[in-house]
Amino acid sequence: MSADSVRPLLEGFRAGRRASLARAMSIVEDGRPECDALLAELHPALGRARRIGVTGPPGAGKSTITTHLAAQFRQSGLTVGIIAVDPTSPFTGGALLGDRVRMESVALDPGVFIRSMATRGSLGGLAGTTRELSDVLDAFGMDRVLIETVGVGQSELEIARTADQSIVVLVPESGDSIQAMKAGLMEIADLFVVNKADRPGADRVKVDLEVMLGLRGGRSLGDEPAHHGVDLRRIGNPAKAARKAAASTNSDVWTPQVMTTVGTTGEGVGELVTSLDRHFAYLQRSGSLAGRRRARTRQRVVDVVEARVRRRLWLDAATNAWLDERIQDVDSGAATPFAVADALLSRSGSLLTGAK
Amino acid sequence: MSADSVRPLLEGFRAGRRASLARAMSIVEDGRPECDALLAELHPALGRARRIGVTGPPGAGKSTITTHLAAQFRQSGLTVGIIAVDPTSPFTGGALLGDRVRMESVALDPGVFIRSMATRGSLGGLAGTTRELSDVLDAFGMDRVLIETVGVGQSELEIARTADQSIVVLVPESGDSIQAMKAGLMEIADLFVVNKADRPGADRVKVDLEVMLGLRGGRSLGDEPAHHGVDLRRIGNPAKAARKAAASTNSDVWTPQVMTTVGTTGEGVGELVTSLDRHFAYLQRSGSLAGRRRARTRQRVVDVVEARVRRRLWLDAATNAWLDERIQDVDSGAATPFAVADALLSRSGSLLTGAK
Repeated sequence: MSADSVRPLLEGFRAGRRASLARAMSIVEDGRPECDALLAELHPALGRARRIGVTGPPGAGKSTITTHLAAQFRQSGLTVGIIAVDPTSPFTGGALLGDRVRMESVALDPGVFIRSMATRGSLGGLAGTTRELSDVLDAFGMDRVLIETVGVGQSELEIARTADQSIVVLVPESGDSIQAMKAGLMEIADLFVVNKADRPGADRVKVDLEVMLGLRGGRSLGDEPAHHGVDLRRIGNPAKAARKAAASTNSDVWTPQVMTTVGTTGEGVGELVTSLDRHFAYLQRSGSLAGRRRARTRQRVVDVVEARVRRRLWLDAATNAWLDERIQDVDSGAATPFAVADALLSRSGSLLTGAK
Repeated sequence: MSADSVRPLLEGFRAGRRASLARAMSIVEDGRPECDALLAELHPALGRARRIGVTGPPGAGKSTITTHLAAQFRQSGLTVGIIAVDPTSPFTGGALLGDRVRMESVALDPGVFIRSMATRGSLGGLAGTTRELSDVLDAFGMDRVLIETVGVGQSELEIARTADQSIVVLVPESGDSIQAMKAGLMEIADLFVVNKADRPGADRVKVDLEVMLGLRGGRSLGDEPAHHGVDLRRIGNPAKAARKAAASTNSDVWTPQVMTTVGTTGEGVGELVTSLDRHFAYLQRSGSLAGRRRARTRQRVVDVVEARVRRRLWLDAATNAWLDERIQDVDSGAATPFAVADALLSRSGSLLTGAK
């Protein structure tokens, strides 16, 4: 599909019309035919927005933190885009009434644009789509893009990795910090937020996290093993090792912060914004921002390549007919999936290169 | 890697040694070089096991139901494999003590093999790996394979679709049935289980589900809208429409059942096993089982093709060097990801077909 097909839409988009933004977002989310042409046109306008991931287990209060952050950014005169990839998020409609009301103050602000993503059926992966939706919001001129995602699976971690900065939200509940570590959240977090910090156990989780991050010794709350029989001091910590190595060569290193917030009152959110700014300054100063963005660009090309391969192979009628004929051989045990896959690729050269 | 490299392992595997099974599972989970050769060798032995998915939101009691099911199957003299893909599952280590103790009675039984999957870092998708791990358990001779997965994202739904039969576990908590529908769980469920049915609200959730499934009218518990202001009767129900259409032509249709269980006591699990058997008989009688397994085989070939494409492209040093050089053009806005992707594919013909 040529660039001409998106010309009228681009005019409205560049004039800052929200209806055009909404339409552009839908084109990208649904992966419609004009999607690539649209993104190619928007490409030169990218790079202004700060992309902030908000990740954590269900019920940690990610939407509340996202709402508070958006409100703070608006108070500083910044425009905000929000993408919710969390099927349990109030933004996607699963709100209790109280949440929804609180959120509406932000949702009705013309300086905020919210898009909830359906988390099923998207060909080629949610992480790619989230990155492209962030691109659209960035090209539209949003100063901040907040990406809310539930951190329970591999795909959600990939989504979090599309952000410039990642906040991991936890609550003071039994084992939450251990779970976070197991689920790989430690590796993506630039900032930790212990939300609902007015509940019992908040200090315990904060200490646990700080021990795991190597920010303090494991014996600070007594001599017993730190948590549920898991001695946190004995868990290898690559991040800590990297920081130590870097510190010994005097280079610039970021130490993840552990903040506390109370979602119901907004307590601690101001400090969170300050920490985000400090972290962003570090990213710029150290060259990490350029590195993260280069990695994102590379991943984007990789995703486009893989999406093209899938489209060229699986939307091709002849390939599908050929495959259907061979499935019976595999089911009967006469052929293996590997032999059929190899045969399929060896006959698909001109299809894959785009020569036909 | 040739079939010779897995010959010694296969001997132990075919002799029924658990250590060989454990090693085969690790080879597949880690995607080691000998993985394809191993799976090709096991391929003719597939098709005996019944694969049962247990999916639901965190905290619904999926592991408890899985444990009870395994115990029941063992009482009938059946062997059981369990794959837990849920990062919050006790099988993966996130148990409260009570759960773990209950589970150990099953875990220590030599007729049961449990594998918890790390849910990060696996190249090529968890659904594919889960299917292949199920294949290994099937080839080993397990009569039942239970796949526990948290149903919160797209990848988890894909995992659920690798099973012959899917159980969706919910709890009588506010909005759980609505969430299930939104998350796409309605479409995969052959059987619903309302667990913790001794809690208040269980009947409400059961009725909600039955209304959504078209098993009863929406006014049966009075005239008020059924739930949180969402009038369930107004939600389009494709499953119901399909059943109606099928019923009018007299063909064989499965109506999802809504069962209740109490995880702490095991109440209702016997009935669940009976329903699973009835559903399996339906799958065989109607030809749906053959259809589901054919679709799974096809998806398997598709996954192998895509994994081969990824491996051939992204493990190729020359391709990576070529790509690295072009990333700067994309970052500067001089080229788009799409143009670079097209150029990459057009130069990769012999790489992709396996000719070099």
